[in-house]
Amino acid sequence: MQIAVAGAAETTRQEYKTAYAVGRLIAGSGAVLVCGGLGGVMEAACRGARDHGGTTVGIISGTGDGNPYLDIVIRTGLGHGRNVLVAQSGDAMIAVGGSYGTLSEIAIALKTGCPVFGLSTWKIEGVVKCSTPEETVTMAVDAARNRSPRAGTG
Amino acid sequence: MQIAVAGAAETTRQEYKTAYAVGRLIAGSGAVLVCGGLGGVMEAACRGARDHGGTTVGIISGTGDGNPYLDIVIRTGLGHGRNVLVAQSGDAMIAVGGSYGTLSEIAIALKTGCPVFGLSTWKIEGVVKCSTPEETVTMAVDAARNRSPRAGTG
Amino acid sequence: MQIAVAGAAETTRQEYKTAYAVGRLIAGSGAVLVCGGLGGVMEAACRGARDHGGTTVGIISGTGDGNPYLDIVIRTGLGHGRNVLVAQSGDAMIAVGGSYGTLSEIAIALKTGCPVFGLSTWKIEGVVKCSTPEETVTMAVDAARNRSPRAGTG
Amino acid sequence: MQIAVAGAAETTRQEYKTAYAVGRLIAGSGAVLVCGGLGGVMEAACRGARDHGGTTVGIISGTGDGNPYLDIVIRTGLGHGRNVLVAQSGDAMIAVGGSYGTLSEIAIALKTGCPVFGLSTWKIEGVVKCSTPEETVTMAVDAARNRSPRAGTG
Repeated sequence: MQIAVAGAAETTRQEYKTAYAVGRLIAGSGAVLVCGGLGGVMEAACRGARDHGGTTVGIISGTGDGNPYLDIVIRTGLGHGRNVLVAQSGDAMIAVGGSYGTLSEIAIALKTGCPVFGLSTWKIEGVVKCSTPEETVTMAVDAARNRSPRAGTG
Repeated sequence: MQIAVAGAAETTRQEYKTAYAVGRLIAGSGAVLVCGGLGGVMEAACRGARDHGGTTVGIISGTGDGNPYLDIVIRTGLGHGRNVLVAQSGDAMIAVGGSYGTLSEIAIALKTGCPVFGLSTWKIEGVVKCSTPEETVTMAVDAARNRSPRAGTG
Repeated sequence: MQIAVAGAAETTRQEYKTAYAVGRLIAGSGAVLVCGGLGGVMEAACRGARDHGGTTVGIISGTGDGNPYLDIVIRTGLGHGRNVLVAQSGDAMIAVGGSYGTLSEIAIALKTGCPVFGLSTWKIEGVVKCSTPEETVTMAVDAARNRSPRAGTG
Repeated sequence: MQIAVAGAAETTRQEYKTAYAVGRLIAGSGAVLVCGGLGGVMEAACRGARDHGGTTVGIISGTGDGNPYLDIVIRTGLGHGRNVLVAQSGDAMIAVGGSYGTLSEIAIALKTGCPVFGLSTWKIEGVVKCSTPEETVTMAVDAARNRSPRAGTG
């Protein structure tokens, strides 16, 4: 199971703490954490996961190394185009905070039938509003588990 | 000057008429119309432009031929990833209607500093709400004209 | 009809002259010239086409403005990923010179059934070796005209 | 360390065996195996790695589930565009066999400074020709270990 975490590279201290907790809880669930692999929310979530034995995947916009808490780095070189890959690679998505990049990830997730759970993020029809990291990760993991399989292998 | 038109492949009759008028007015302004090149809002806008001497570019998700009203077809094969290219290629964007694909185009446009003008579309901070095709195209063309040049050539 | 021109951003004086002639002849054929939109072979071909009344499309790797001889600029931000789009968007491809970027465009073209005509480029099975710009453009335009239509619109 | 394996979805029995051995040896080295995640060479390599305790990442062209031997699946939806991501994500590349898709991966790898080691593949300047899976993986792992770090994080 793969849980995508969407969130901005610039973040408040509170969002950083929230994203860290999200990462920690994803690790606890046994799911793999997939994100954009850079700073801010992405770094905090990866750090939380790594500090608690989880596996992290960064789908980065450039071709560098991403943040220091990645197990796997996908060097896309696609710029903002990588947001689409993050959204498509999650079996469920958790969105933290309110940047436009996050909004694009939410939009693609909803477009492709990926359930989205939000913490202090955009109010968009289809996003399930959550209050705590615990509630969010529990719901996201459940949704990912119950999601119907993808069509085909390709 | 290039004006991007964002909108869904499935559309109401009213949206089709609106998008056709948007295309007609873009042609009248002398700007090139850039869009996702498929049906619905995209087809209507291209048709309006082509019927009035404009130039149309379709950045399509697959590798086919796009709608019948395209002068230029960019066969991306990128799936939803092509939305990012539509948003980045406009000097201004006009969004018609409210699908999730349109939302992703709006988000990337705003993320990259592209002014967005909306007709019956998502209420997102940064989108200028307009009432008529005439008002929308006038504002979009003005904004595109006044937009600061891109950095570098690459 | 769209003819793709593949070639490096760094080029010799001779390749520049060859690419300019290719662009001039594409313009003369009435076809649209599609390329990566930057310097070297790409710039020379666009310049040749524009000087002779042709239409040029640059599918650029970044989000800037491309070379000064573009009618249409597609700002992909995809880095090397844009090579795939150039290859897929041509009804035939002309390759000039021998960089690795050009090789990637040749490979994708051949993979997708796009006929490739080469001038001083890689010796790859499937590439038709040509001797002059005149011969190359004549063969490419013929091949593009006779190419079977793409499946579907999307 | 991440080793990319390039190779076609359609393959001979001999190539399948070779690719399986490559995967087994990558697992033994402790490196992560990155590939296009579908059938043929890609499946064989993943299977060899998984059967021997390795970790596998599939960067697939569509949005399905990829082959059954993937630990991580990146659903790009980019079509052939995903080849660029495979090439960029390896610290070294091993190419098995001779399809055009493989050629595009080799070209992008060489373009971006990624060392490429070939088994019965294209004779391209820059590709190190190898004779056995053992020799290939040893050289690739060494090259990956000695590769200079990427610039920046992004």
